[in-house]
Amino acid sequence: MSYLKIKEIFEKNIVDQDATIKGWVKSLRKNKAFSFVVLNDGTSQKDIQVVVDSSLPNYEEVIKCNTGSSLSLTGKLVESQGKVKSIEMQASEAVIYSQTDENYPIQKKKTSFEFLREVAHLRPRTNTFGAVTRVRHRLAMATHNFFDSKGYYYLNTPIVTGLDCEGAGEMFRVSTLHLNELPKDDKGNIDFERDYFGKETFLNVSGQLEAEAYAVGMGGVYTFGPTFRSENSNTPRHLAEFWMIEPEVAFAELEDVAKLADEYIKYMINEVFTHCPNELDFFNQRIEKGLIDRLEKVKNAPFQQVTYTEAIDILQKSGKNFEFKVEWGVDLQTEHERFLSEEHFKGPVVVTDYPRDIKAFYMKQNDDGKTVRAMDVLVPGVGEIIGGSQREDDLTKLQARMKEMGLSEKDYWWYLDLRKYGSVPHAGFGLGFERAVMYLTGMSNIRDVIPFPRTPKNAEF
Amino acid sequence: MSYLKIKEIFEKNIVDQDATIKGWVKSLRKNKAFSFVVLNDGTSQKDIQVVVDSSLPNYEEVIKCNTGSSLSLTGKLVESQGKVKSIEMQASEAVIYSQTDENYPIQKKKTSFEFLREVAHLRPRTNTFGAVTRVRHRLAMATHNFFDSKGYYYLNTPIVTGLDCEGAGEMFRVSTLHLNELPKDDKGNIDFERDYFGKETFLNVSGQLEAEAYAVGMGGVYTFGPTFRSENSNTPRHLAEFWMIEPEVAFAELEDVAKLADEYIKYMINEVFTHCPNELDFFNQRIEKGLIDRLEKVKNAPFQQVTYTEAIDILQKSGKNFEFKVEWGVDLQTEHERFLSEEHFKGPVVVTDYPRDIKAFYMKQNDDGKTVRAMDVLVPGVGEIIGGSQREDDLTKLQARMKEMGLSEKDYWWYLDLRKYGSVPHAGFGLGFERAVMYLTGMSNIRDVIPFPRTPKNAEF
Repeated sequence: MSYLKIKEIFEKNIVDQDATIKGWVKSLRKNKAFSFVVLNDGTSQKDIQVVVDSSLPNYEEVIKCNTGSSLSLTGKLVESQGKVKSIEMQASEAVIYSQTDENYPIQKKKTSFEFLREVAHLRPRTNTFGAVTRVRHRLAMATHNFFDSKGYYYLNTPIVTGLDCEGAGEMFRVSTLHLNELPKDDKGNIDFERDYFGKETFLNVSGQLEAEAYAVGMGGVYTFGPTFRSENSNTPRHLAEFWMIEPEVAFAELEDVAKLADEYIKYMINEVFTHCPNELDFFNQRIEKGLIDRLEKVKNAPFQQVTYTEAIDILQKSGKNFEFKVEWGVDLQTEHERFLSEEHFKGPVVVTDYPRDIKAFYMKQNDDGKTVRAMDVLVPGVGEIIGGSQREDDLTKLQARMKEMGLSEKDYWWYLDLRKYGSVPHAGFGLGFERAVMYLTGMSNIRDVIPFPRTPKNAEF
Repeated sequence: MSYLKIKEIFEKNIVDQDATIKGWVKSLRKNKAFSFVVLNDGTSQKDIQVVVDSSLPNYEEVIKCNTGSSLSLTGKLVESQGKVKSIEMQASEAVIYSQTDENYPIQKKKTSFEFLREVAHLRPRTNTFGAVTRVRHRLAMATHNFFDSKGYYYLNTPIVTGLDCEGAGEMFRVSTLHLNELPKDDKGNIDFERDYFGKETFLNVSGQLEAEAYAVGMGGVYTFGPTFRSENSNTPRHLAEFWMIEPEVAFAELEDVAKLADEYIKYMINEVFTHCPNELDFFNQRIEKGLIDRLEKVKNAPFQQVTYTEAIDILQKSGKNFEFKVEWGVDLQTEHERFLSEEHFKGPVVVTDYPRDIKAFYMKQNDDGKTVRAMDVLVPGVGEIIGGSQREDDLTKLQARMKEMGLSEKDYWWYLDLRKYGSVPHAGFGLGFERAVMYLTGMSNIRDVIPFPRTPKNAEF
């Protein structure tokens, strides 16, 4: 028999008619004459309370359906009598799929986020993780719709790579070699020619270089895929495996992609306001008081911009006692980024034109010989959410910079080809998807905004 | 200065006004008084022919802009005079970004698909690969829109895993251990506790198991992410790294997801007809004669269904001389799948209820004790495009099957939890995205429908 989703019942205000709903028990209150089953099916922040009368033939079984049990309930939907207007069901039939007992791990007393990470396979059934899942979905849809509306093409760049895009060396090796019988070459080195891909390969830290190849042919593209860092960072803002969105745009300069980033983040905020109002209310009440206000403000003002050099000046004059010393040439630390976005600018800020020596080889060099056309977008609560740059489109300058940094032209032959043949100004950025979900929900630990987090010493599930 | 995309010019039929276009030269025909530059910017199957008059101040430079050069051209858009109605530009200004010389790899004579794979970074500039990129993008958008319209949530299941979902053992190891100094435990075995994730980890072959955890809480979910197989298959239908879409639906049986698969494929076909008519014409003319007819037929009829047992009967009675012997209990080979879909059913066919011994442990067992509620969707030209099943939701039966197959309950503790707590009937399938792109374009080698293919001995770019 067909059934209704709870979301639909509330959105269409379906009352005074019979329906079937299917889902999992949030809570059960037993009485002699009748009991209340609170049911949720994952589609809505709101539950439906079902009144089960003791006249039901299987009443004695239904009242054994503790939290986590699965049921199909049929009955009349009616406007409820409580102080808050809602919809409830008067059940005339109950089909039990599965009864849980008191061993069901998610009990009222055990719902800390730390504990729920240990039962990440069951946590989508909680209010918080249901809400995170729905908002995360909406942000993914918003991402595709936003870039599609710009005429940019979704691009699946490779996950397995022989190149280290960022030159940071923090990569996972991918191999099918038997570790107990590693093949060696004449010199006694491991012979990666006999590995699956015929050379040493890793998990990609970015799809940018490959996205550039498509941008300078298709106009605009964007990736949305997993990326990997093997750094040993056990912080609430780092994952070993995370999802990144990387637009890359031909005939664009840094200003163009700074504007694109601003539009994109506002678009995401608007989509969540439109499609997830109940989830936003929930996060605003339970997770971060003031979340809605904070996001409303961002919707209505352009991102502020400051150069790195100006930012250093602001930090030096702030009178703050930072742990890491501030001086021109150093990379900004989280404490600096948070001061800038949270205290000084009180909102998202785009920092541009970083020192070349702390940035990657592919960034376009400014005429001052000291800085590159890089940008980071910093937001309150999260810090860096976007990193991007205009790319060096001058073959000679790119080759010179690669030589300085000890990168082999042979490894990057095809990337250099993009500057030899039909080079155009182009720029792009990467947005860490989980950080965006944190920013939009107020969730403070990145492990709680991805279904099954991968962190040092943890690849459970 | 802002500029127009070529797609927009054709779609809105913009003529008799000035505009700027930016792109790459497809071809150049030089004359004394004027020359023709054929430009494409990646947004359209159609090029724009630009008439460049010798009165242009940089005319001598413009006529050195060979195939692959990048230009910004400004001038009047006019209806062209040729036999086919089109739009061309009369240039009044040309800005040259980059001139190529005769070393540009993609010349008229060197455009075999085999050669273009060696310059995969430049092939998006060709007609075929521009078309593939646009259709692939449209299919990705269609996928998200289709499942979103059903109320299913996009789910990012983990790429790095400690489990082998399919039990096939064809997985890539992910590790940060130094190969020259592998840590050993007391017994002399490699000590994976000292690896990054604290245990032996691999690239996932499927997101299904994790998707099930979310389905039995959120109702319906779908993945769209990269999956990996390390089998040594050098065929036109296999990649080591490919993208898969895996819907998983609670309160659903096999029939429900067979219907979902049918709807989904038809939805994709309709979206391509609506949004990519020029690309379809191109593929129909240049890649597979009859493509449009073939797809039209699929749009208008429900997929046919047959049980595995019936399919074996059909194959045995076919009178065909198959390389691999057909008998009940063997897995279907490509030759059998193609006979069924191409010759017997002449269209997509869903084969259901396979022998349990050739299928994975998680499939729902039929009462006959011999078969499971599995399905494969076979399509002409490609073979298997979808594999799916109803999942075993009975804890005892699942445990018994795992024991038979030598799988450890300890490894799958959380997967078993899903049957202990709130188990419901559920089902899902996986669609190989590249095979869908092949099916919708007529492209015959899977290496040509993904930007940068990964195959045995190949991880270039």
